[in-house]
Amino acid sequence: MNTVIIGSGNVAYHLAKAFKERSLPVSLFGRNAGELERISDELDLPFYTELPKADLFLICVSDRAVEEVSLQIPYQDALVAHTSGSLPREALKGSYRKACFYPLQTFSRKQKLNYSEIPIFVDAETPEDANVLKHLASEISGSVMEISFEQRKYLHLTAVFACNFVNHLFARAKEIADAQEIPFRYFLPLIDETVKKIHHANPEDVQTGPAVRNDKTILERHEKLITNTETAKIYDVMNESIRTMYHLE
Amino acid sequence: MNTVIIGSGNVAYHLAKAFKERSLPVSLFGRNAGELERISDELDLPFYTELPKADLFLICVSDRAVEEVSLQIPYQDALVAHTSGSLPREALKGSYRKACFYPLQTFSRKQKLNYSEIPIFVDAETPEDANVLKHLASEISGSVMEISFEQRKYLHLTAVFACNFVNHLFARAKEIADAQEIPFRYFLPLIDETVKKIHHANPEDVQTGPAVRNDKTILERHEKLITNTETAKIYDVMNESIRTMYHLE
Repeated sequence: MNTVIIGSGNVAYHLAKAFKERSLPVSLFGRNAGELERISDELDLPFYTELPKADLFLICVSDRAVEEVSLQIPYQDALVAHTSGSLPREALKGSYRKACFYPLQTFSRKQKLNYSEIPIFVDAETPEDANVLKHLASEISGSVMEISFEQRKYLHLTAVFACNFVNHLFARAKEIADAQEIPFRYFLPLIDETVKKIHHANPEDVQTGPAVRNDKTILERHEKLITNTETAKIYDVMNESIRTMYHLE
Repeated sequence: MNTVIIGSGNVAYHLAKAFKERSLPVSLFGRNAGELERISDELDLPFYTELPKADLFLICVSDRAVEEVSLQIPYQDALVAHTSGSLPREALKGSYRKACFYPLQTFSRKQKLNYSEIPIFVDAETPEDANVLKHLASEISGSVMEISFEQRKYLHLTAVFACNFVNHLFARAKEIADAQEIPFRYFLPLIDETVKKIHHANPEDVQTGPAVRNDKTILERHEKLITNTETAKIYDVMNESIRTMYHLE
């Protein structure tokens, strides 16, 4: 199966690299000839600035550009998938078989990734197309799953809690440490260990800290230490949520 | 310098192991003879069930047991340090030189730890004792810092945000994924990458997600998906905090 990856951003780059590493036939198409040439040179892959024919088109552009790009594909016998976590298949507006091929990872150009560990979620109009995409995805990744658009919404929501909000907690934590001139890097081993733990345990079973210990002395002390309004609200809501989860009084 | 570690829990075990690995003279003391013998056998270290003399005593027991244990040390020329993140030096009630020797890590018996990466924070009554403890700590760890009890309170608060609350976000995220029958392990590569990022970047500079993108369509969609009251409150407060940090309307 011949695939064309559309786009020249981070998702396009990493998917192209993953295809190349597995010797899957792939070429690149996009508007940014300079970027395409750079990726094409680095990965030793062909690129086009006029759309070639292919069995599969993977649209790797920002959510708001998907519709416009999707209208440029004239091949009715092609399978076309976007790679967005947030859009339905129907965001694709051309006359062809529509699908979604969503790799769950945060991509930046410079980072090295182990593609076999990146989960890929697929969603297609027919079981046949779903199988084609699942087969292709499993050439790259050891974690492949078919999910509906409805489930994909929850997938995205879960990622917001487990990643976006986690990063924001790090940002608020760093503010507290910075004000005391304690280098934030001193917290990295503890953070690493916190994450290592949930590779083998249910997070609910390994909760630690003053809230789950119901240590009111420390909770009151902490409340007095916090000066930032948003940080104080986070402290209250998180502790309340912990108390509720563990049925504490 | 001769050190006696008091206790037989996880902190006692890992500190004893760190001392042993660096060939620092150390022995164990505690009430739980069975556990002491087990650790002593594994690490090939002497243990006592009656308190021996030593230059330094490291009290590695739970916060609420520190005072009682501290009263059992009769040696006025000794240096005695507890290993708690939350207690002042004055929690030690005997007549001797008092200090704190606080390793910032979450300890469980089975996990393997690289002790050279675990930050150790010291606090003593005199600069001389602080130097003794800093010197000892730097035999074990590459990150040693002297901090006051006041700073230590903020250190603990920072750790609550960066670790306890992060783990709780994982627990709430897992609830959402579980309800959709999406295995939580599919999120681990993304979580690992989120943490890997902040080893090299300021978390505030690498925030992603719908809140910082000011993507109101997705924010409204997510609000409708959440059914759990506590999860909904976390969603609102975290997004509000992100909007405030990045001055979004």
